[in-house]
Amino acid sequence: MTRTVIESKTKTVVIGFDEPFCVIGERINPSGRKKLNAELEAGDFTTVEKDAREQVACGAMVLDVNSGAVFRNKMADDARYADNNFVEPPLMRELVRRVQAVTDVPLCIDSSVTGAIEAALEVVEGRPLINSTTGEDEKMEAILPLCARYNLPVVAISNDESGISEDPDIRFEVARKIVERAADHGVPAHDIVVDPLVMPIGAMATAGQQVFTLVRRLRAELGVNTTCGASNISFGLPHRHGINAAFLPMAIGAGMTSAIMNPVRAVEMEAVRAANFLMNHDPNGSAWIGFSRVLDQVAEGTPFAEAAIAAGSARGGGRRGGRRRTG
Amino acid sequence: MTRTVIESKTKTVVIGFDEPFCVIGERINPSGRKKLNAELEAGDFTTVEKDAREQVACGAMVLDVNSGAVFRNKMADDARYADNNFVEPPLMRELVRRVQAVTDVPLCIDSSVTGAIEAALEVVEGRPLINSTTGEDEKMEAILPLCARYNLPVVAISNDESGISEDPDIRFEVARKIVERAADHGVPAHDIVVDPLVMPIGAMATAGQQVFTLVRRLRAELGVNTTCGASNISFGLPHRHGINAAFLPMAIGAGMTSAIMNPVRAVEMEAVRAANFLMNHDPNGSAWIGFSRVLDQVAEGTPFAEAAIAAGSARGGGRRGGRRRTG
Repeated sequence: MTRTVIESKTKTVVIGFDEPFCVIGERINPSGRKKLNAELEAGDFTTVEKDAREQVACGAMVLDVNSGAVFRNKMADDARYADNNFVEPPLMRELVRRVQAVTDVPLCIDSSVTGAIEAALEVVEGRPLINSTTGEDEKMEAILPLCARYNLPVVAISNDESGISEDPDIRFEVARKIVERAADHGVPAHDIVVDPLVMPIGAMATAGQQVFTLVRRLRAELGVNTTCGASNISFGLPHRHGINAAFLPMAIGAGMTSAIMNPVRAVEMEAVRAANFLMNHDPNGSAWIGFSRVLDQVAEGTPFAEAAIAAGSARGGGRRGGRRRTG
Repeated sequence: MTRTVIESKTKTVVIGFDEPFCVIGERINPSGRKKLNAELEAGDFTTVEKDAREQVACGAMVLDVNSGAVFRNKMADDARYADNNFVEPPLMRELVRRVQAVTDVPLCIDSSVTGAIEAALEVVEGRPLINSTTGEDEKMEAILPLCARYNLPVVAISNDESGISEDPDIRFEVARKIVERAADHGVPAHDIVVDPLVMPIGAMATAGQQVFTLVRRLRAELGVNTTCGASNISFGLPHRHGINAAFLPMAIGAGMTSAIMNPVRAVEMEAVRAANFLMNHDPNGSAWIGFSRVLDQVAEGTPFAEAAIAAGSARGGGRRGGRRRTG
């Protein structure tokens, strides 16, 4: 049975076919978040720390930490800041330190800059998930040896030098290529978490079915766990949270085992928790029943993150609110 | 490709693997509805007519009409009313007439009394779905010849003389037995809509997975359409609409093609419409986009049925609002 083990200093999370769906919080990412990007440029980590705490309270089991900031003001004074190989490594180091100081969940180290991933590894505690390699030769040769050397699991995105194929069979073959190359480097299939790439259904009518079919094949034929950027599916559509909230249970039913998503959205988290219950991954429905008390507060007008933080404190609070610990 | 064709006087609805999920409105059913039962006893069809109109406006493609009333006051005066064989046939006849007078969708004729189904057939227009036979010999010998004689499709509930098995393999074999017996009577598999029976996950942790597995098998091995009483899954649980709203997309993803459900619930209907879109059964997302305008009204405080009726009138109104017509 495929199990991808991710650890913080004190907590173990298993992504697996017989495990609750692994929600990887996506919020700590300056791309498209002007305010966060500006804060990071000013050395201000207030929003990062708030996002870390809120996401965990809302149900994130792992936090993605993305260092892809663009420091435009610094760039004007110092040309080195135009290079992400210069910007990201120290930023990633600091992001990891800050997030670890306020939460205790495992991390997903997310950067297109190999040096930023290496910088994270200097300070991260436990066994993080590396995000990501693609099927491009140069990328695989940069990331897979790193994963092998440190014995780390990795997200494998199913595009390569030819780009993102609209043909799901080609995306499957890219995933297979990464799994095989990883094996050559000594990284086993159970440490590869494949992202089959989710297209928007507004642009491609078959996008949903492609994902469901790919997830089933990846699981049956390659034996790998899967993840995705779940909200892509609804890009550009009205009431997109309603589409996300149907997509997640359908993907989970097809065998998807994790997603990089915004956990500070009650509708999507309700869908994930209900799907866990329906997959028999919530013994006695105890997680559902606990969550339903948070939903009661939301129905009365309390913002979801606030209600979730209050519920977490009532259970024993903040850093100790996890479902599974090893330390 | 399996297609179960149901018709009213003017409309055709196809339940099928490549069709939008068929929502069968469950509201016209006096069981557990004291007020409706009392109205029917008094010969008052106000609620029936309102429920018929509202369900269609909210998205029901077929209306279930159940005549299982208990007339306690009449019973006190006249012992014949203690017998449903006496009560239901004239009541069913009148229910069908009333519903046909205010809506134009096909009907699902729902009674445990064969005489009530025969009474419906005297007045129903088009090709209704018969609800139901079980795998009990006596029931099959009452219902299947009727379906053969009038060339009608039928709901097949997978229990028999031994009751409802908790073992899904036994429920599958009951379904197979009904399909085979139906064939002996000349009723083809594409006119059998199997209800694999949905247990509450609060009582049976594997209930969700049982349904998903059974639906896949029924489709692959028997080639039949499927239906269920969807809300059973969440019986007894808090925030049950959240569970229903995850169950429906998961069942649809597994291949379920219809459900008998309450369409006057925005959360469940949003889940069904999103799932249709994700299954590529909503060309260009036009149904989703239309529905999202109704959701806009609901977000502003308009009750769902009211917003749906207003949207239907804006599209051309009342009886003409259907998605597919033959007449």
